[in-house]
Amino acid sequence: MNASRQDSRTMETIDGLIRNIRIATLNSQLDTDYGVIEDGCLAWNDGKILYVGPQDQSPYPSAVTTIDGDGCWLTPGLIDCHTHLVYAGNRAGEFEALRQGKSYAEIAKAGGGIRSTVTATRAADEADLFSEAAKRLQRLLAEGVTTVEIKSGYGLNRDDELKMLRVIRQLGEHFPVEVHATCLAAHAVPPEFHDDPEAYLNRVIDEILPAVAAENLATSVDVFCESIAFSADQTRRLFRAATRLGFKLKGHVEQLTQQGGTDVLCEFNALSADHIEFISEPQIGRMAEAGVTAVILPGAFYYLGEHQKPPIESLRAHQVPMAVATDQNPGSSPLSSLLTAANLACVLFGMTPAEAWSGMTRSAAQALGLGDRKGQLREGFDADLLLWDVDHPRQIIHEINRFRPQRIWQAGQERTHVKN
Amino acid sequence: MNASRQDSRTMETIDGLIRNIRIATLNSQLDTDYGVIEDGCLAWNDGKILYVGPQDQSPYPSAVTTIDGDGCWLTPGLIDCHTHLVYAGNRAGEFEALRQGKSYAEIAKAGGGIRSTVTATRAADEADLFSEAAKRLQRLLAEGVTTVEIKSGYGLNRDDELKMLRVIRQLGEHFPVEVHATCLAAHAVPPEFHDDPEAYLNRVIDEILPAVAAENLATSVDVFCESIAFSADQTRRLFRAATRLGFKLKGHVEQLTQQGGTDVLCEFNALSADHIEFISEPQIGRMAEAGVTAVILPGAFYYLGEHQKPPIESLRAHQVPMAVATDQNPGSSPLSSLLTAANLACVLFGMTPAEAWSGMTRSAAQALGLGDRKGQLREGFDADLLLWDVDHPRQIIHEINRFRPQRIWQAGQERTHVKN
Ligand SMILES: [Zn+2]
Ligand SMILES: [Zn+2]
Repeated sequence: MNASRQDSRTMETIDGLIRNIRIATLNSQLDTDYGVIEDGCLAWNDGKILYVGPQDQSPYPSAVTTIDGDGCWLTPGLIDCHTHLVYAGNRAGEFEALRQGKSYAEIAKAGGGIRSTVTATRAADEADLFSEAAKRLQRLLAEGVTTVEIKSGYGLNRDDELKMLRVIRQLGEHFPVEVHATCLAAHAVPPEFHDDPEAYLNRVIDEILPAVAAENLATSVDVFCESIAFSADQTRRLFRAATRLGFKLKGHVEQLTQQGGTDVLCEFNALSADHIEFISEPQIGRMAEAGVTAVILPGAFYYLGEHQKPPIESLRAHQVPMAVATDQNPGSSPLSSLLTAANLACVLFGMTPAEAWSGMTRSAAQALGLGDRKGQLREGFDADLLLWDVDHPRQIIHEINRFRPQRIWQAGQERTHVKN
Repeated sequence: MNASRQDSRTMETIDGLIRNIRIATLNSQLDTDYGVIEDGCLAWNDGKILYVGPQDQSPYPSAVTTIDGDGCWLTPGLIDCHTHLVYAGNRAGEFEALRQGKSYAEIAKAGGGIRSTVTATRAADEADLFSEAAKRLQRLLAEGVTTVEIKSGYGLNRDDELKMLRVIRQLGEHFPVEVHATCLAAHAVPPEFHDDPEAYLNRVIDEILPAVAAENLATSVDVFCESIAFSADQTRRLFRAATRLGFKLKGHVEQLTQQGGTDVLCEFNALSADHIEFISEPQIGRMAEAGVTAVILPGAFYYLGEHQKPPIESLRAHQVPMAVATDQNPGSSPLSSLLTAANLACVLFGMTPAEAWSGMTRSAAQALGLGDRKGQLREGFDADLLLWDVDHPRQIIHEINRFRPQRIWQAGQERTHVKN
């Protein structure tokens, strides 16, 4: 009998098994709920989760790699669903000048703001962009990010947008993280089109998007719908073209003023509406109907010293999924920590730690159109796993710069050499 | 001639030399000034700086260890001059409960707040307190902290205050960091003295402080002078006793209300007045006269969602030195990052990055009475050194969680094995 047991074990050999853990599956549909399994066990094979549940009900007694979790917590890998982390230069000089009494207008007049990043990014080659972005990406990976979205948007012409998107692809090839690329050519009107924004939009539609599609360099198209960038009507025009080319859609909307970008996103059943500080109650209702995920970006709110907060309570009441992301960028959110973004969302916006956890996992997956395979510990989902030595996952949100995962698996492969 | 040169080099052998660096000496008396030396060189021996200045004027051509800094920046080691990082338990549950709609009063009634930390800390033994505190301390060390102040104040009786202070001493013995211990027995009135705060203060004066002095376990005495803790008159009584025992003085003052604690600190020429959100203009003038350093603690302001900011412009106008610290504690500032504290001071309070750098180095040294040997790169000062791969030190303040020192020396010894 022992021998036959032995045989069946051998036949059932699978890639990995972690036992003696507490699990925050995040697979509840309630953002108040971590989806906890005490005395849990998780098994995977071929990068996919085979079993997650109570240890005493697991059909898998062992695996090629069997790990004793020693009572630690297991969570899904973190997903940073909104970043602009590929760029050249830095804007610390502006940060200092503002606090020495200079105005935003003076800084813009001196060539500062996004324009300085566009200039530096256009001047940089792929190797330089890659090495600078890699350092920022590694900071995120050390916290347990296993999936990241990265946008273009500092090239603002065909060649430089393609250059950025190629660097984004290289980052995904080089690092143990799943990278999703978004074309944000409609980030700003570049200086050479200052007097004719429509002409630039035409260029995006007629030239840049088709080139991105031809090289298969991005899965989504994004836009900055704002008084200082593109209108709701221009957003609609962009989205029609992007849809024809097969892109998914996202938007920076209602961040600084109410522009109606959210309504356009809902018309097109976009993946996500990002920022949304100035969103209205009816727009939130439309998001709920259209299945658009809210992406909460407290980094920019914090750095810009804004006062209008996104309406968390109303989003909660309408059961709109809320993702949380870093918005990593050189100007308004030079923040290389998704865990700090989650802390900011709780402290500044009143999200609960459980909502912030959903925001970095399940809802972030939805914001990238990956809700059917990422962001939850669930059978059939990707084995993106983090092991944490904490009493409870809420501690990881509560304390700034205190916790890092003890171990990290991405698609079932353990990461061994990312700098902490 | 070549031979004689060779001889003189050998005779001049010193411990260490870093060349090909840019240096932020922080030795200007102006907080607007990093004290920059381009094409610099720094030499040390026996833990003390021998030379800091232009490379081409250095009298030391080589050393036992000669390092090519490759154009990186050298700064003083960071000094976190106000922490409470020794404690047991955590308060993430309260953080979550508050955001689920519970009030501070309900949480206090359920035994939460500082009382829960006192209960857990009294129950913990030295080994447990050490291992928990060590994890927090290591997070600070990885950022380049080479000197740290740690307070007692969760024991609130003789034996448990002594226990905390012994753990603080052990941390200094075990880790490559200079630890300065402060007795904060007057942190709160413990529950068993709820009806008779004066009796507790007598206990502090008659029993706890003498015991701390007898074991030489702290160099300073601190107090929480606030409506919910001790009055200005009680602070005066405490300080008279502490002065007789040879302690230096510090105070948590004017954090939540105006209580006059700053005036008492000035009467006693204390080292520092900490928090000071509600300080008055005349009090700032008195601080300048009495040589009291301001310690700016944005972590608590941030976590508590306060609105009254410390009067940075007025402190600047009166040339009161401003230190910046984490206030690392389990309730109001669970922040294990001095660099993030500096960022918060700039973003929330309008300090400049140069002021924040002074605040983590030169002024922090003054807040600990160490202004004559720490916090600046200056001949005769301690060789606490950080090497950073950045364009300029202001970047380190601007970006959250992005930069860590490439190399760290504490008193001339390179640190090699602190986790990042
Ligand atoms: Zn963005
Ligand atoms: Zn404190």
